Amino acid sequence: MWFDDTLRGPANNTALPLLPGDEASSMAWAPEEAKLRWGIMGCANIARKNARSMLLCPSAELVAVASRQLKKAQTWAAQFCPEGVRTYGSYDELLQDPEVDAVYMPLPTKFHVEWVPKAARAKKHVLVEKPVALSLQEMDEMIAACEENGVFLMDGVMFMHHQRLRKITADIWGPGAAFGQNLFGVPTLITSGFSFKADDTFLEGGNIRTQADSDPLGALGDLGWYCIRFGLACHQYRWPQKAKSVRMIYNAQGVPIDSVAHIMWDSGDEDRPYVLQFQCSFMHPFRQWMEVCGSTKILKVEDFVISRPDNATYTTEMTGFLDYDIRPTTHTEHTETPRWPQEVRMFDTFAREVAALGDAGGKPSFWSYVTAATQACCDAVVTSSKNGGEAVDVPTLSRFSAST
Amino acid sequence: MWFDDTLRGPANNTALPLLPGDEASSMAWAPEEAKLRWGIMGCANIARKNARSMLLCPSAELVAVASRQLKKAQTWAAQFCPEGVRTYGSYDELLQDPEVDAVYMPLPTKFHVEWVPKAARAKKHVLVEKPVALSLQEMDEMIAACEENGVFLMDGVMFMHHQRLRKITADIWGPGAAFGQNLFGVPTLITSGFSFKADDTFLEGGNIRTQADSDPLGALGDLGWYCIRFGLACHQYRWPQKAKSVRMIYNAQGVPIDSVAHIMWDSGDEDRPYVLQFQCSFMHPFRQWMEVCGSTKILKVEDFVISRPDNATYTTEMTGFLDYDIRPTTHTEHTETPRWPQEVRMFDTFAREVAALGDAGGKPSFWSYVTAATQACCDAVVTSSKNGGEAVDVPTLSRFSAST
Repeated sequence: MWFDDTLRGPANNTALPLLPGDEASSMAWAPEEAKLRWGIMGCANIARKNARSMLLCPSAELVAVASRQLKKAQTWAAQFCPEGVRTYGSYDELLQDPEVDAVYMPLPTKFHVEWVPKAARAKKHVLVEKPVALSLQEMDEMIAACEENGVFLMDGVMFMHHQRLRKITADIWGPGAAFGQNLFGVPTLITSGFSFKADDTFLEGGNIRTQADSDPLGALGDLGWYCIRFGLACHQYRWPQKAKSVRMIYNAQGVPIDSVAHIMWDSGDEDRPYVLQFQCSFMHPFRQWMEVCGSTKILKVEDFVISRPDNATYTTEMTGFLDYDIRPTTHTEHTETPRWPQEVRMFDTFAREVAALGDAGGKPSFWSYVTAATQACCDAVVTSSKNGGEAVDVPTLSRFSAST
Repeated sequence: MWFDDTLRGPANNTALPLLPGDEASSMAWAPEEAKLRWGIMGCANIARKNARSMLLCPSAELVAVASRQLKKAQTWAAQFCPEGVRTYGSYDELLQDPEVDAVYMPLPTKFHVEWVPKAARAKKHVLVEKPVALSLQEMDEMIAACEENGVFLMDGVMFMHHQRLRKITADIWGPGAAFGQNLFGVPTLITSGFSFKADDTFLEGGNIRTQADSDPLGALGDLGWYCIRFGLACHQYRWPQKAKSVRMIYNAQGVPIDSVAHIMWDSGDEDRPYVLQFQCSFMHPFRQWMEVCGSTKILKVEDFVISRPDNATYTTEMTGFLDYDIRPTTHTEHTETPRWPQEVRMFDTFAREVAALGDAGGKPSFWSYVTAATQACCDAVVTSSKNGGEAVDVPTLSRFSAST
C-alpha cells in the first residue's frame, strides 16, 4: 500500500509543501480567516511547549484550557497562557465551548479513544499527542469519528513540519528517483537510536509513560513512534510489510521500557526487504539519531526528533579508498536555519489543512494515513514480541486499502 | 571469564600500554635488538599496506615474500618491497628461510589452520589476518601450535594499536570505574555499523570474502570481526556470554553478506545483559561507526576501523533539556593526531611481545585471548543463525578458563 494521490494531502513522490519560514518559500502564514481558536485538554508538560507554539503561530489563538480540576487549569493558565484564556474543570465543558475550533489533546494514550471521538462529535478538530492509540483498531475508530463529523485529525509529531524533513526526503527522492537514477538511491537500510535515561521510579510506573493503564506502549509508543515515522518519511510513507521485535525489555507492569525492532518494506526481493532498525529506550542517555543508507550515500541526522533550535543540520557522505586509507570523497553538511520552531509550523500546517477540509470530498487525509501507518507498526512490534520475536505482517486498514 | 592478569599482557582494568608516537609517551620504538625480519606469505591486496608498515616501522624489516607462483612474488616484490627482498614460489620455502623471524599471513581464512601451525613448527612468529579461523576449534589448534613452539601469535586488527583506543577505554574505565563512580558509567549498549558496497559479482563469490571454500564467514568475519573486537575493548575484553543472530543474508554459496547480531555480556541481571548490536554488510555504502552508551554519556567514533590518517577523533556527549529545547550540556571532541599510522604501531607491538616471550613462562597471551574471544562470538552468531536466531551461549576455551 503506497501513499499516493488517492489521499488528500502531499502526493506520492512529492515532498511536503513549502511552509512559511522556508528559505525557498515566499508563502505567508495561513491567512487570517484560517486562524483557529484552540483549547488545550490536559495540562501535561508537553502542553507548555505547545501553548507557546500557539502564541507564536499567527494562525493559532489559545482561548481555553481544561483540566479535571479547575484549580489546576487556572494555575496552569496563569503560568503559561495569555490573559483572558478561559479555564474549565472538565474536558466536557471545554468541548461545549462554541468558540473553540480545535483541541490539543496531550492526555495519556488510554483516554484518546474516548476523548477524540467526543471532541469530533462536538465538531472540534483534534491535534492528538502520540502515541495516538492503544491499537490500530482504536486508531480506526478515531479516524472514523473525525471523518463522520467532518473534523481534521493530526498527531503531534513536530518534526513532520520542519523544513529539514522536506529537504531530506527531497534529497533521497530527488530528480531521477522515479527512474532509479537519483544520486542517493533507495534507502535500503535505516538505523536509529532514540533514548533518554529515566530513573528507577520512572521506569517502574512513576510516570504515565510507564504505566500499563495509561501508556502501555511505553518506550515503543513514546519514542519508537518517531523512529517509525521518520522511516516512513524516508520510504515516501509507503505502508510497511512486516515487523519484528528483536528485543523488548518490559517493566514489572508489562510496559516496554526498551525496544529494538525492525520494520520492513517490500523491496521486490522477499529475502532482502528494506529495513528500519531502531532502538528506543528509557534506559540510556539522551540521543536521537537517524542514519539512512542509500545505494551510494549515507545520510545522517543527529537530532531528528527535537531539532536544535538554532541550526538544524544533516550530512550526506560518500567514502572511498585513497591509496591505503579511507577518506570521504564527498561530505556535505546541510544546514537549515529555521525562522520558526517546528512545533510552531505544526500549528500552521494544521490551520491550512482545516481550511482545505471543505474541498476534501470525504477523502481520507494524509495525516490520518501516516498516523495509522505508525500505529500499525507499533501494533506489529508488540505482536512480534508476544510471538517470540518472529517477523509478523504489519496490519492494514481497509479505509486505506484503496491506495494499495 | 574476565581477561585478567593470569594472562600475559595488559592486565584487567588497564588500558593498553603507551606506545611510541603517543603524545603522552616518552618511549622509543622497540630496541634495535628486538627488530624482526619479516616474510609475507601471500600477495593479497592488504599486504601492500603492511609491506609499507614494515618499511616504516623501526622494529621491522621486510626480507622475503612468497606466493604460490614465483613470478607473482617477484612482480609483487618489485612493486612494493625494498630491493634485495628474497622471493619464493611456495610458502614452504619461505618457512625454511632461517633468516625470517616472523611471517605475515594474509591468506584466505580456510588456509590458516594449515599454515599457522606449519609456520609455528618452523619457529616463525605469526601475524595472521582476520578472520583467523573457520571455527573456535581451529583457532585453538593454532594457539596450541604456537604455544608448543614458543612463537607469538597475533591477528591483524590494526585499531588495537591506535592510541585512540587506549584513550577511549581509559575514558570508559577511567578513575573511579572500579567503584562504579566513573563519569562515563558502564557501557550498557554499544551500537555499530560497518559496511562497504560490493557489486553483484563480488557478492556472489567473485571475491575470496564471499567464497564458501575461502572465507565462509563472509561479512561477519571480514567486518563483524572489528565490531566484536571493539565491543570487547569497551568491556575490558571480558568474554561475552551470549550471542544472537538478528538477521543474516547469505549469498547463493551460503556465505553471509550481511549480518545483524547482538553480542551480550553478563550484567548481573539476566534479562538486561550489556549488549553490542552491530550491522555489518557488503551491501551498503562505506561506513564504520561505533556508538557507546554509558550510564551518563554517549561516546561516538565515526572511523573506528580505518582511522583517518590525519586526525582521528571521537566525541563524548551529555545532553539535557533547556527550557523547551534539547541542547548538549557537554560535547567534547577528542582528537588524536597520530605520528604513526596504527598499522605501523602494530608491528612495533608485535616486536615488543616477541622480545618479552622469553619471560612468559608459558602463560597464554592477551593477543591469543582476544582473538579467540572474537572468534567465539563469530561462531556463536553463526550457530544462532542456524537455530532460527535464538540467543546461544558463546563457546569458551578451556585454555582461558583459568581466568574465569
